Amino acid sequence: MSAPLKLGMVGGGQGAFIGGVHRMAARLDGQWTLVAGALSSDPERAAASAQELGLEPARSYASWQEMARREAARPDGIDAVAIVTPNHLHAPVASAFLEVGIDVICDKPLATSLADARALQALAQCRERLLCLTHSYSGYPMVRQARALVEAGELGALRLIQVEYAQDWLAEPVEQQGQKQASWRCDPAQAGPAGALGDIGTHAYHLASFVSGLQAEAVCAELSSLVTGRQLDDHVQAMLRFPGGVRGMLWASQVATGCENALRLRVYGSRASLEFAQERPNELIVTPLGGAGQRLTRGRAGTAAQAQAATRIPAGHPEGYLEAFAQLYREAAEHIRARREGRLPAESSRWLTTAADGVAGLAFVEAVLASHRAGSAWTPLQQGQQQSGGEAA
Amino acid sequence: MSAPLKLGMVGGGQGAFIGGVHRMAARLDGQWTLVAGALSSDPERAAASAQELGLEPARSYASWQEMARREAARPDGIDAVAIVTPNHLHAPVASAFLEVGIDVICDKPLATSLADARALQALAQCRERLLCLTHSYSGYPMVRQARALVEAGELGALRLIQVEYAQDWLAEPVEQQGQKQASWRCDPAQAGPAGALGDIGTHAYHLASFVSGLQAEAVCAELSSLVTGRQLDDHVQAMLRFPGGVRGMLWASQVATGCENALRLRVYGSRASLEFAQERPNELIVTPLGGAGQRLTRGRAGTAAQAQAATRIPAGHPEGYLEAFAQLYREAAEHIRARREGRLPAESSRWLTTAADGVAGLAFVEAVLASHRAGSAWTPLQQGQQQSGGEAA
Amino acid sequence: MSAPLKLGMVGGGQGAFIGGVHRMAARLDGQWTLVAGALSSDPERAAASAQELGLEPARSYASWQEMARREAARPDGIDAVAIVTPNHLHAPVASAFLEVGIDVICDKPLATSLADARALQALAQCRERLLCLTHSYSGYPMVRQARALVEAGELGALRLIQVEYAQDWLAEPVEQQGQKQASWRCDPAQAGPAGALGDIGTHAYHLASFVSGLQAEAVCAELSSLVTGRQLDDHVQAMLRFPGGVRGMLWASQVATGCENALRLRVYGSRASLEFAQERPNELIVTPLGGAGQRLTRGRAGTAAQAQAATRIPAGHPEGYLEAFAQLYREAAEHIRARREGRLPAESSRWLTTAADGVAGLAFVEAVLASHRAGSAWTPLQQGQQQSGGEAA
Amino acid sequence: MSAPLKLGMVGGGQGAFIGGVHRMAARLDGQWTLVAGALSSDPERAAASAQELGLEPARSYASWQEMARREAARPDGIDAVAIVTPNHLHAPVASAFLEVGIDVICDKPLATSLADARALQALAQCRERLLCLTHSYSGYPMVRQARALVEAGELGALRLIQVEYAQDWLAEPVEQQGQKQASWRCDPAQAGPAGALGDIGTHAYHLASFVSGLQAEAVCAELSSLVTGRQLDDHVQAMLRFPGGVRGMLWASQVATGCENALRLRVYGSRASLEFAQERPNELIVTPLGGAGQRLTRGRAGTAAQAQAATRIPAGHPEGYLEAFAQLYREAAEHIRARREGRLPAESSRWLTTAADGVAGLAFVEAVLASHRAGSAWTPLQQGQQQSGGEAA
Repeated sequence: MSAPLKLGMVGGGQGAFIGGVHRMAARLDGQWTLVAGALSSDPERAAASAQELGLEPARSYASWQEMARREAARPDGIDAVAIVTPNHLHAPVASAFLEVGIDVICDKPLATSLADARALQALAQCRERLLCLTHSYSGYPMVRQARALVEAGELGALRLIQVEYAQDWLAEPVEQQGQKQASWRCDPAQAGPAGALGDIGTHAYHLASFVSGLQAEAVCAELSSLVTGRQLDDHVQAMLRFPGGVRGMLWASQVATGCENALRLRVYGSRASLEFAQERPNELIVTPLGGAGQRLTRGRAGTAAQAQAATRIPAGHPEGYLEAFAQLYREAAEHIRARREGRLPAESSRWLTTAADGVAGLAFVEAVLASHRAGSAWTPLQQGQQQSGGEAA
Repeated sequence: MSAPLKLGMVGGGQGAFIGGVHRMAARLDGQWTLVAGALSSDPERAAASAQELGLEPARSYASWQEMARREAARPDGIDAVAIVTPNHLHAPVASAFLEVGIDVICDKPLATSLADARALQALAQCRERLLCLTHSYSGYPMVRQARALVEAGELGALRLIQVEYAQDWLAEPVEQQGQKQASWRCDPAQAGPAGALGDIGTHAYHLASFVSGLQAEAVCAELSSLVTGRQLDDHVQAMLRFPGGVRGMLWASQVATGCENALRLRVYGSRASLEFAQERPNELIVTPLGGAGQRLTRGRAGTAAQAQAATRIPAGHPEGYLEAFAQLYREAAEHIRARREGRLPAESSRWLTTAADGVAGLAFVEAVLASHRAGSAWTPLQQGQQQSGGEAA
Repeated sequence: MSAPLKLGMVGGGQGAFIGGVHRMAARLDGQWTLVAGALSSDPERAAASAQELGLEPARSYASWQEMARREAARPDGIDAVAIVTPNHLHAPVASAFLEVGIDVICDKPLATSLADARALQALAQCRERLLCLTHSYSGYPMVRQARALVEAGELGALRLIQVEYAQDWLAEPVEQQGQKQASWRCDPAQAGPAGALGDIGTHAYHLASFVSGLQAEAVCAELSSLVTGRQLDDHVQAMLRFPGGVRGMLWASQVATGCENALRLRVYGSRASLEFAQERPNELIVTPLGGAGQRLTRGRAGTAAQAQAATRIPAGHPEGYLEAFAQLYREAAEHIRARREGRLPAESSRWLTTAADGVAGLAFVEAVLASHRAGSAWTPLQQGQQQSGGEAA
Repeated sequence: MSAPLKLGMVGGGQGAFIGGVHRMAARLDGQWTLVAGALSSDPERAAASAQELGLEPARSYASWQEMARREAARPDGIDAVAIVTPNHLHAPVASAFLEVGIDVICDKPLATSLADARALQALAQCRERLLCLTHSYSGYPMVRQARALVEAGELGALRLIQVEYAQDWLAEPVEQQGQKQASWRCDPAQAGPAGALGDIGTHAYHLASFVSGLQAEAVCAELSSLVTGRQLDDHVQAMLRFPGGVRGMLWASQVATGCENALRLRVYGSRASLEFAQERPNELIVTPLGGAGQRLTRGRAGTAAQAQAATRIPAGHPEGYLEAFAQLYREAAEHIRARREGRLPAESSRWLTTAADGVAGLAFVEAVLASHRAGSAWTPLQQGQQQSGGEAA
């Protein structure tokens, strides 16, 4: 194990949710150490958060602009920045760090528009820096097992993709009651034009694409705001057309009473089907046509190399969300080290989600928005360039 | 227990599936005895089937027309006829028996067009005869529990309905290989213009309506034939709009590899949600907002009267599909006896599925077909008149 | 389908539970018709019950002694009697009917002592009559699948058997509050010396033996009465030694709060294990060493002939407890017809539970009682003669 | 967050399993940093392991004796040592470090004899140092929820405890084939006199005690070695008597084909029961008498404070084994800091497993061994002094 890489963070101060997740994920495998941050737009909260996290006061910055400038100038400056702000800041913050040559690990969605996402992707390519997107669910070993099975043709020709992501934490108008997580996510100025669509619809779409290897060609969608007074969608329903006649449906809702974080993917092929449910991440159900359903478990002999590489402990000892998230941090470290050492990243880290995934996600978001505005007319997706698994952005 | 009613059957000869189910269902509660039949359009098979079932030779008829005429003329003629033919015969056979004053228990769908369904409903009303439709899944105690919870307001204001019905028995082109069940279901001349849509889509739609108490206002749908050479749809996907802003999705597929008979309904309200899966019919999951999911089981204290009335044996002793089906036969007997005795049917049998449900089902089918032809345009459903639970058709 | 056999019933009048189950089970497959009964020791209840069930008044008897005598004398007398009384009457009633040459279908346990059970077995053999015991759980298709897998060696050498049967309906002293089912089951005069042990412990033991093909050699057991004032055991725990070094544990409890009818069997061999849970009877989990757990489902291609023969409807359409129970009635009919026709019963009915199973059950009961009295000393089982699947008793 | 504490490790070099788990667990919450080690008894492996983990060469020791001596002498010496060696070294290593005043975090079992365990407990008390035992499963939030429910009386009077721990990794004689994990665990010289009993039976027993708050009074047990040639037990079955007439059964097996890490606890009280399965650690099933089973989930509103304190991320985002393990490291840090600061540890860390738990575990092990040797005679447990949740050892 080489010395840990140095991580900075923008956003993620006290009261935030995803910042703490990034920090635990970064820490778990001993590949990263947090050394700098612009943890809040509120200077007092930024300082208090930095102190709580044990940052040197000199590396707790009042603004991300200053942080980018000063860290780039330090001989011991950060190796990468984690961006965990509300959505509207993803693009400007990522740009600022890429511009000064710092690798970026960005929460999803990559941006609030497809144009911005493409610009970021281009910038990362131009600067030859990593722009990693934390579609955390792709870090689960059994999601990787699922993808490996599809790639190996175990499902036969794909036919149907059913993906859904149901939560209930916005079942009441909590954004109007001061809930911090909710208030920015329901505010178009901070979240962008997509509500549940951007927040979890993009996860659902990414998971479907990651496993199936397919991007949708067109969508027929309807958005709803089922809670009175809500400014953004809290419920997304869509039908999808994938290449080769593959059909799909996507449902994402944040008002589905009784659902915690029910992301679930089912893919049906001519020979077999698979089912993955995020709330039971250590298993994958595979059912061959005419045969018994098989419950594949993380860590058992016979799992694919890409799944095995994302596994830390033996079968029967559950791994969870933090471990999946940590996988992305581990792989980002590998990408950065590989580039610096002039080699390709290890085969086991080639499924890291990158800018291409972010661009594809925004293409999906914009197509859904357009279809909804057109009364659910079938609307083509603007083509992205590549998906994760090709060369990194 | 009064003496059993006398049942005749049209269709259901050797090699058929649903005929045997109707016979076991009729027998289970001791309310019916099979005494006559026109069991097959093939006279030899009709006779052999009748003998196997122990019918008197004189009451095994070569045609349903003859059967209707002669049974109506007998002093000991049948009390009701069960129609278990391919779809295209439902309407003519039902008409023939209603015309001669014989009550009808008809497999679904009621007809192959909305016009025919409405004509049948009118005829039944005019002749004052029962026209019962075997939407068998509505006979499950926990489906009735679900409906009772919705009616009692336990879910709060409804918001979302997700219903799906996935099978895989048509995942290969078995209709081109002589499979009897498949060949008529994939033949427009016998099945009508709807394939999976009519066969299982109508069940899914009925279940959603039965439990929610709502009929869709409009659908946005796409049909697919995912197996090469298939003449009818084997995959249905649709978005639905229900009254009061309730949103829904419906998926029905007979090519979903690995799925046996996966009919599943989820209904989300502002206060709680419920989930019913046909393959685990003895339970119902109800989850209140912010609370623990509850697994309600058939036969436990506290279940609703309508569920209790459909329960035969104690909790923990699984009941199944035949018991649910038998419930419809039991209630049909009660409706017939009540009419003859000049009284209302028992409260516990008021949820029997009738012609009104059949009309609603055809309205759904025709709207889906129209939406599909119009490139998935939102298409209103033609309004039915009433749903089950009102007066019988 | 031949004409139904004629069934008589002793016990099972109004207010009883298992009598109604026997009647539905007898009716389901059309092989039996109920024509006579001594339905209650209370003459008024007997008559009222008979009328409700549509029996001819002349064939509703005031005592089972009279019924045996008079039915044996009728030219159209019953083909078999179903005994559904409290335990203490099983042996005398069965004897009376066997003595007059009438086949017997008896609820379990066969008797209240091993000596009585053996005497009954001998009597049945001597009179060449069927003495069938309704260990209903052995009628489930997936229990038969389990046995077929063991017989075929799919599990390798057996090592461990874990069986448990947990209920909670005696969690409170309901027998002291007039609950009819409970009062006789908790009364040594009617239930015999074993409480939960005889009522459900025998089911658990039978299931383990039926599937594994093994009878225990010795038990080390402790009985408890966990509800104050209860006269018989309501909780059984035991360790078992089977031949060949196979180890086992058995737990049966009627005070396990929250359990409905949780009979569950797990068998572990050197190559694979299996798990069956009665509350999900349409599936069987089989897990090979080092491989993925497989969920075998009733009715799928590839199930064993003995399982297929006990299956009525396609996979995905749940069958339940009544269907399992009906299987025993169907097979009893086949045994009786075969004997009368001078042929062997069909291969598919050779797993019918018979007197030998009843004798084995009582050997188990007496060994547990003896071990308990001896402070949980290891106590050998008195050897039975044969188990079901050999020649019928 | 204060500066991390300094951790040393004995054992856990390359090829070990549990060492890596301890390191990830220590790292996750940022409370510990690994700075020293005697990672292997093989000096070469020790050095290579130290380098891989980034330890300073000077703090990679050839022996634990040297490590204890020199770390105690350093001004920046370790705050605590983690002991992850085979069982026979737990007591000598722990003694050595306690003697020089270093806090100890020890893998289970605490020792290979009850006498040794008691001596260690006394030593820790005398030196006023923490002796924490990593019964990792007690770190799961839903295990703590279970204990809180029992303590609050939600289950009523306890009646039954069923605990089982089934694995299959020793289903074949892998210890004879060079598998490192297996070879020491099956060697009495390294593992002590108990095989599966010490390795996982102690976990099962601890879980039962932790949740119920009860220690067994007596056991009636049988050990088996079901794999030919194995020197220690690989299968444990036992009946238990707890105070107040509470009955229990315990099963622990490492040859249960198809089981990965199936630790499962069920506790039945007069009012409700609970069920926890380690392989689904984010849920707890609680079923009140006569009511619907409730699925409580980690992180939902309404969970107990002790469960909430062990929760890192929101409901629906699975936590796993490493998080449970990390909880012990977090609480050990809190205990150490509190002692140094002259205050009591936070209420939320009072359930840390300590030497008292280790003593109770060895009392259980010795009673089982004695019962087995005495032909499964009921054997009393030697009383421990206190259980976790009282003052730390």
